[in-house]
Amino acid sequence: MSQQPVLIAGQWRPAQAAGTFHAENPATGERLPDEFPISSWADCEAVLNAAAEAATILRATPPEQLAKFLTRYAERIEARSAELVEIAHQETGLPKSPRLADVELPRTTGQLRQAAAAALEGSWALPTIDGKLNIRSVLEPLGPVCVFGPNNFPYAYNGIAGGDFAAAIAAGNPVIAKAHPCHPATSRALAEEAISAVRETGLPPATVQMIYHIAPEDGLRLVADSRMGAVGFTGSRAAGLKLKAVADAAGKPIYLELSSLNPVVILPGALAERGAKIVDEFTGSCLMASGQFCTNPGLVILTAGEATEKFIASVAEKFAAAPVAPLLSAGVASGLKNNLQKLQGAGAQLVTGGQPAASPGYRFANTLLRVSGDAFLAAPEALQTEAFGNASLIVVVRDAAQLVAVLEQFEGNLTGGIYSDTIGRDDALYALLAPSLRRRVGRFLNDKMPTGVAVSPAMNHGGPFPATGHPGFTAVGIPASLRRFAMLACYDNVRPERLPTSLRNKNPNGKMWRLIDGNWTRGDLASQAMF
Amino acid sequence: MSQQPVLIAGQWRPAQAAGTFHAENPATGERLPDEFPISSWADCEAVLNAAAEAATILRATPPEQLAKFLTRYAERIEARSAELVEIAHQETGLPKSPRLADVELPRTTGQLRQAAAAALEGSWALPTIDGKLNIRSVLEPLGPVCVFGPNNFPYAYNGIAGGDFAAAIAAGNPVIAKAHPCHPATSRALAEEAISAVRETGLPPATVQMIYHIAPEDGLRLVADSRMGAVGFTGSRAAGLKLKAVADAAGKPIYLELSSLNPVVILPGALAERGAKIVDEFTGSCLMASGQFCTNPGLVILTAGEATEKFIASVAEKFAAAPVAPLLSAGVASGLKNNLQKLQGAGAQLVTGGQPAASPGYRFANTLLRVSGDAFLAAPEALQTEAFGNASLIVVVRDAAQLVAVLEQFEGNLTGGIYSDTIGRDDALYALLAPSLRRRVGRFLNDKMPTGVAVSPAMNHGGPFPATGHPGFTAVGIPASLRRFAMLACYDNVRPERLPTSLRNKNPNGKMWRLIDGNWTRGDLASQAMF
Repeated sequence: MSQQPVLIAGQWRPAQAAGTFHAENPATGERLPDEFPISSWADCEAVLNAAAEAATILRATPPEQLAKFLTRYAERIEARSAELVEIAHQETGLPKSPRLADVELPRTTGQLRQAAAAALEGSWALPTIDGKLNIRSVLEPLGPVCVFGPNNFPYAYNGIAGGDFAAAIAAGNPVIAKAHPCHPATSRALAEEAISAVRETGLPPATVQMIYHIAPEDGLRLVADSRMGAVGFTGSRAAGLKLKAVADAAGKPIYLELSSLNPVVILPGALAERGAKIVDEFTGSCLMASGQFCTNPGLVILTAGEATEKFIASVAEKFAAAPVAPLLSAGVASGLKNNLQKLQGAGAQLVTGGQPAASPGYRFANTLLRVSGDAFLAAPEALQTEAFGNASLIVVVRDAAQLVAVLEQFEGNLTGGIYSDTIGRDDALYALLAPSLRRRVGRFLNDKMPTGVAVSPAMNHGGPFPATGHPGFTAVGIPASLRRFAMLACYDNVRPERLPTSLRNKNPNGKMWRLIDGNWTRGDLASQAMF
Repeated sequence: MSQQPVLIAGQWRPAQAAGTFHAENPATGERLPDEFPISSWADCEAVLNAAAEAATILRATPPEQLAKFLTRYAERIEARSAELVEIAHQETGLPKSPRLADVELPRTTGQLRQAAAAALEGSWALPTIDGKLNIRSVLEPLGPVCVFGPNNFPYAYNGIAGGDFAAAIAAGNPVIAKAHPCHPATSRALAEEAISAVRETGLPPATVQMIYHIAPEDGLRLVADSRMGAVGFTGSRAAGLKLKAVADAAGKPIYLELSSLNPVVILPGALAERGAKIVDEFTGSCLMASGQFCTNPGLVILTAGEATEKFIASVAEKFAAAPVAPLLSAGVASGLKNNLQKLQGAGAQLVTGGQPAASPGYRFANTLLRVSGDAFLAAPEALQTEAFGNASLIVVVRDAAQLVAVLEQFEGNLTGGIYSDTIGRDDALYALLAPSLRRRVGRFLNDKMPTGVAVSPAMNHGGPFPATGHPGFTAVGIPASLRRFAMLACYDNVRPERLPTSLRNKNPNGKMWRLIDGNWTRGDLASQAMF
């Protein structure tokens, strides 16, 4: 079978390949038939040149056209949803329903539509007008954005269709998608719809481009290239930090979403009040999709005692009884095994699981580990190793003081939460812990497991380093996610007819929120305020 | 004379000094009497510990108290203004009036008061509420902020009093000020007022701390320390990029304001229409304060011809006739000399000046260089060397095509501007050039020189790398400058009484703008929207 082409400058063309790869069906371990290229630097060079040209045109493209593209793309994905679900199921082993068909695909098209609405309205760019001094500013596109998608969301975080893609396009930038090599055929099908929507809506052909795989050194060269505007990366900490180092040195904004343990603290009162319910919530959150979520609850803290032993025993029972779903790849399976060994080497004890599960495909027994607070404090770094997959570590602390000491050791995380009772017995302890956990996480939860990242304007899917590269930005949540891919553009004394429409006295669409002389308004700047 | 103490944890205490230094009066070259310490790492360790403790308290401090401190500090600076002007004049050689007394000092107290107002109102933190999903987010403090002040603004950018200081405090962070060694006594006097205001308003003593000087390796260690929240740096590119590298690697947000040429394009029509006026504007902007501004017009582009020769001759005449004011230090004088030599080595020709001026103190002749577009394009990097001080380079291009080619070579700059005529002859050329210049600068001007950075909510004193480290942020302009020193803090399903007041259903002060379910409002969240 011939090699699959790459999408460069609006054309599906043969890659200038440095090698080839095949995806696998992780539920069976079988190699899938399509041969995909590992692009050489020559392909990167071509996408960069085409993207730079497209960026110039997109800066002058009306937001209505961007919105039309995003909407049309969503419609095309929906029209091809049955096939997309088949392909992604084959490449990821994720259930067709509800996961792929009923959750992730609608989430993806929903994100594209929300991004379209944000582009159309224009408020995301925080247009700000000082009428007295005639100084005006607004966020404007940065230029080509390279999006590296992760293995665990074939649609919703895909470089060619996911949240970073939607945000970068809505902000007016072309996207260079680096597909994840675990699901190249899904990415190809999405890219086919994307480029068709580009053609239908008259955007520059290189608005969306895609390559499947590149050598690590070409990835480093790509993100630091002078033609690059910014980078979005979701994936492993090791790869992300390497990209960050070179992007930072080149002065390119890079937005990372790396590993996270998402600590959950269950206070004694909550355990006493509704322990069985929390067992169910935790088990569901931890095992869903084999735990392959950025927001999987990978670390749970409980206080030593009988109720905690009962909690652990119940969870262990449910973990052992629950079916074992496939992992996304051989790499995820071996990573899980290695990281669980690392945790055990650092003092964690196996409660249940701990071994690869029976074939077919890549599976690992649902795994629960435990460690005492003393042992955690003796090796806090090693015991914060993320074991990506269907596994979690329970830290059993001696008392409140040790609980505080454990929290103080936490790295930055995407999320963190506290379960407390409803009758006030946990309140003092909550008040002691909450400030410490709060500042270490992007999203702070009460009485709720962290999986499930709503696409809400108030969402933060981000957090302090090393969960991400900058604690001020979110990867999920529109309009805030758009602001990552923009620069602050100030206009000082610029003549009225030369201003971007968003900064003219008249509100261009009557819907755009603008900060005019200190007040948010959808109105016009009264012309008497000018002089 | 005994060594001056440092301000650590609320106390003026003897430094654990690794060395000492004296400031100089740059107008005379005389060494000033006070001996100041170069702190060892032990002092850094002490300020970090104290700042970390203060940060915990400040997170729970009501904004009213921060605002009171900022206001009280401004009042105290004003009460001591005559003495502050004397001291700063002696240490910087800048004119007492209007510069120090009538421009920079009022700007500084104005910034403190604007920051107080922003803290009090709370809108800066972009409180965002999704009432349906009960997800809420707001910007919260990052922790200790280290502010490195530059040599050229003894008050308005001082680590203990300037824009970064005001922004970091208003956002709820303690500040570790690294005073600039060129004006330590000014910084000491300001710090005395700051700590008095801290005491008067009951903030934690380590809310403001100050050290004068540290070894470069301790600076690198300081910004990457785990206790640090973020860094603000205004100064040289070489030092700034070193700090950036270590801060980036440690995942600490660092906001830089580095060098900038601030290119000004003067189109033929404008030159014909009002050449003499532009000569005056340019000369004034370039020679004010010996050109020692981040926004000094260091590069001017004109099209070859008679009018341009006349422009250059007129500027040269004015440069030669204008008095030569002192530079800020021996370092600035030698840097200016070296960078002018570098420019000449790369092909620039001297029009006037080019040599150190007669004593006393550190002075350099007002200097104008010129270079052809051909020569510029042959060595675009070297010819973008910033010669910080009273100097500028005129690039004389052959035609519009060469003008575009020159613009395309520009690095990121803080500002860039175009002068065009008022009768439309320049419009086509403007339309060709503006998009290219626009995306390379933070603030884009029409018909105006870049010096003078208004403290306006719409200001951007920032821009693409290497003018700064991230193109999305501004160092001047309130409230936006506060957002640099904050993290996005999301609350998911958090119980009402545990939410920060800014995210509760009821607007806490009736003045705070909040984005509730897509609309900016100063109202409350109607309780029926909750479920």
